[in-house]
Amino acid sequence: MFVQLENTALGHRVSLQDVLAALKFDADGLVPAVAQDARTKEVLMLAWMDRKALERTLAEGFACYWSRSRNAYWRKGETSGHLQALKELRFDCDGDAILLLVDQTGPACHTNRPSCFYLLAEGNQVRVTSEPG
Amino acid sequence: MFVQLENTALGHRVSLQDVLAALKFDADGLVPAVAQDARTKEVLMLAWMDRKALERTLAEGFACYWSRSRNAYWRKGETSGHLQALKELRFDCDGDAILLLVDQTGPACHTNRPSCFYLLAEGNQVRVTSEPG
Repeated sequence: MFVQLENTALGHRVSLQDVLAALKFDADGLVPAVAQDARTKEVLMLAWMDRKALERTLAEGFACYWSRSRNAYWRKGETSGHLQALKELRFDCDGDAILLLVDQTGPACHTNRPSCFYLLAEGNQVRVTSEPG
Repeated sequence: MFVQLENTALGHRVSLQDVLAALKFDADGLVPAVAQDARTKEVLMLAWMDRKALERTLAEGFACYWSRSRNAYWRKGETSGHLQALKELRFDCDGDAILLLVDQTGPACHTNRPSCFYLLAEGNQVRVTSEPG
């Protein structure tokens, strides 16, 4: 499926069900999903989805992940209120990664920072680049 | 390490070596690494790094991944010339994902598209959103 799509032109369409069936989930049935702020383009977080989390995200219009630490589905923001409304969902060229463009309510990170990627490598140190909430 | 960093203020610094030692590599010794265009903020691709690929990336200033299909280090662009010059490297809050901000030479995708994420979910279809190179 994904190899066949490589040379297809702009605008070509295929069935979502066929793409979902061809995705390359790992041994645990998961693919990494990157959430990016649709407005600022900031990369907010990376989490994991199985097929059902992906289908829930598409059907419900809010990001739903699989929590590897809790072994449970995790509608992002279901307890914090920091929901991610889905604007776009994209698959990569070889079908083993997902990109979500979202409208993020509140901070994305559980530390109440806007993004989870607040640890910046600088020389032989790592610097915290945003204040916890 | 990462739990301790959660409540540290903006500007706090820790040793890079301590962070590298605390990263949560998976059973194969890998973490997912997201490459984002430093100028346009477009998410270009997701690939994988082991500790050595991460150290090479930081030391050499160009993205180096671990190719799971070839079981080999992969200096991105070493054959295509489509190098990724490193502008920033960030770790996430729980130390199991990497974000690279890069100056991308040429297209990032092996299909010669600017980004690997050219497959957009739309209703019950998926649409190709950029022309192959």
